[in-house]
Amino acid sequence: MEKEGRTGRKVKCDRMLGFNISAKDSSTQARTSTVRTAHGDIPTPVFMPVGTQGSVKTLSPQDLQNADASIILANTYHLTIRPGEEIISKLGGLHKFMGWPKPILTDSGGYQVFSLPKLNKVTDEGVAFQSHIDGAPLFLSPESVVKIQQAFGNDIIMPLDQPVKFPAEKDSARAAMERSILWAQRSAKVEPLAGQYLFGIVQGSTYPDLRKECAERLTEINFPGYAIGGLSVGEPKDVMFETLAGFTGFLPQDKPRYLMGVGTPRDIIRAVALGVDMFDCILPTRVGRNGWAFTDNGIIRIRNAQYKDDPTPIDETCNCYCCKTFSRGYLRHLCNAEEILGITMISLHNIVYYQNVMARIRQSIIEGSFGEFLKRSEQWEK
Amino acid sequence: MEKEGRTGRKVKCDRMLGFNISAKDSSTQARTSTVRTAHGDIPTPVFMPVGTQGSVKTLSPQDLQNADASIILANTYHLTIRPGEEIISKLGGLHKFMGWPKPILTDSGGYQVFSLPKLNKVTDEGVAFQSHIDGAPLFLSPESVVKIQQAFGNDIIMPLDQPVKFPAEKDSARAAMERSILWAQRSAKVEPLAGQYLFGIVQGSTYPDLRKECAERLTEINFPGYAIGGLSVGEPKDVMFETLAGFTGFLPQDKPRYLMGVGTPRDIIRAVALGVDMFDCILPTRVGRNGWAFTDNGIIRIRNAQYKDDPTPIDETCNCYCCKTFSRGYLRHLCNAEEILGITMISLHNIVYYQNVMARIRQSIIEGSFGEFLKRSEQWEK
Repeated sequence: MEKEGRTGRKVKCDRMLGFNISAKDSSTQARTSTVRTAHGDIPTPVFMPVGTQGSVKTLSPQDLQNADASIILANTYHLTIRPGEEIISKLGGLHKFMGWPKPILTDSGGYQVFSLPKLNKVTDEGVAFQSHIDGAPLFLSPESVVKIQQAFGNDIIMPLDQPVKFPAEKDSARAAMERSILWAQRSAKVEPLAGQYLFGIVQGSTYPDLRKECAERLTEINFPGYAIGGLSVGEPKDVMFETLAGFTGFLPQDKPRYLMGVGTPRDIIRAVALGVDMFDCILPTRVGRNGWAFTDNGIIRIRNAQYKDDPTPIDETCNCYCCKTFSRGYLRHLCNAEEILGITMISLHNIVYYQNVMARIRQSIIEGSFGEFLKRSEQWEK
Repeated sequence: MEKEGRTGRKVKCDRMLGFNISAKDSSTQARTSTVRTAHGDIPTPVFMPVGTQGSVKTLSPQDLQNADASIILANTYHLTIRPGEEIISKLGGLHKFMGWPKPILTDSGGYQVFSLPKLNKVTDEGVAFQSHIDGAPLFLSPESVVKIQQAFGNDIIMPLDQPVKFPAEKDSARAAMERSILWAQRSAKVEPLAGQYLFGIVQGSTYPDLRKECAERLTEINFPGYAIGGLSVGEPKDVMFETLAGFTGFLPQDKPRYLMGVGTPRDIIRAVALGVDMFDCILPTRVGRNGWAFTDNGIIRIRNAQYKDDPTPIDETCNCYCCKTFSRGYLRHLCNAEEILGITMISLHNIVYYQNVMARIRQSIIEGSFGEFLKRSEQWEK
């Protein structure tokens, strides 16, 4: 069945997203695949640079394409608050708005709704809150969150969910999980847009039985992919990985799994070993703005005095524009002088570094050397 | 005579800079030429983007090359204060430090020394002052300022000078002019670096007789080019152009003339008509950071509500990456959301706009239509 998509391109109107696993690691749950969307293919495991407000901080779409990013993330809550889905739709949808032709995933804003604004009322119907920008009263329901993302016209969308903080009492973790499942069911009933795919989001805090139950009940709804929410919210790393290891096996093997908001390169490799396919994190751009640059040999804190006359690039092995053009000494000067180019260049390097880590993960799975790569990564910074 | 330059390239060690006038306008003093340096040719009239602290704010060297910038400017005062000429020299000189392979002009810092820091003592020997960054006591002499710029290893350098504010009493304007001439003489006696050229700087406030005298006395020293300082310091525009018109004729016809710190595109065209060849100004990047974008039809203040759902680019006629990729609506969103990409993109557009204005000036001089272009530009914003 073919339908005219928002972009005017003929897109295959499947309920299911293309997902072809091409290799599996023998010693772990790691797998490599291609996710197919109307805006392009996504090789997984994949890292999605985060463009919260419709811009991956400091970087242009050209920078991101040069970095081989195959999909980026934007945030429904932030873009609904400003500029609003009406303006984005008028300006041709989120791809055209951002000048980004490849796939886009939007998270639902559930996490932001429950952390940023003043909450007025949460019921099964939805969330009433006040904009964190101007205090305007707003209401989001599961249906309206899907419809907003339909106005954006992007590729992969998330349902409204209710995360809980860590630690959470089991009762409140269950209540939030039940509400998230209810909202997922209602979201799945909204008539989908051609070429746009809604994931389920697994909640349940760090309780193995809640996570398992949530994974199974969402699987019954038969989503084209599954996100894992409510982790990396302050719990110890080992607790996060223990929780994750406890339930990924209850998610379908033949659907992509997306671990929201994780993490360091080392975290990502550990999660890939547990069968996760998709990641997003603000880390590479956020620490980039502090002058922190990722390398296999650890994080370089470029403001440190030791780099003041260092003629070498951040990373001799890196082919990014920053490493091909600038010395650590110059980048340190830019950061000290508060020149924007400094944080732009270090953000660029960090995104390229993350993309390279993902390429090495995929290659090692194909070549059967993922286990060794996982082991080597244990020497990396946590 | 050939010498090994700092960069290791063989450079022609002329005392005189290459300067070949290829066309003159019949109705004005406008002319077009090529200035030849060891790091490349500079077609004039030329606009030099300003990289005060060793970075044209928000833009990469690649952005500037894509914008067809043939020369950029950096500031001796700022780079001496931070990171210091020693570090720049250790890191391979200013071109390598900044990752910019084309010509660089450094201004002497005279203007900054007399405006930014706490001045301790000014004598014919030089200027004692305190760093505006950390209060460290510093002393600059005409000789040390040349030697600092030799450590930078860039192409065109300026002598220490003493500008005066507007309005200035004639006595103080004469005293500052006399000291500037004395310093220019002493600067010219420093053994020059191969491939590096020292300009004289004309001072004299808005007094026609002082300006004429200064131009003539500097001409006797026989500099490879002449800068015009102490204008655009608060005087009315008409006073600036009247002053300029009064003395450019006393500068040699066969040397480049550089009007420091000017100005709007309209100002630049008016000054080209008076025989000026080189310009620098922070305007395109400074107003870019406020969300102001230059077009032939006036400045677009992108934060204005009228652009909130405007799908058109800043300038339909512009080929820059910003105009080819983003709508006014998106750029407005970026500026409102304080996303750095917004100010980077508008700065890029403004630099490209300036470069395009210069290309149109050069083309119109060659084609004999400069007079018409000058007239059309009178409709532009002041």
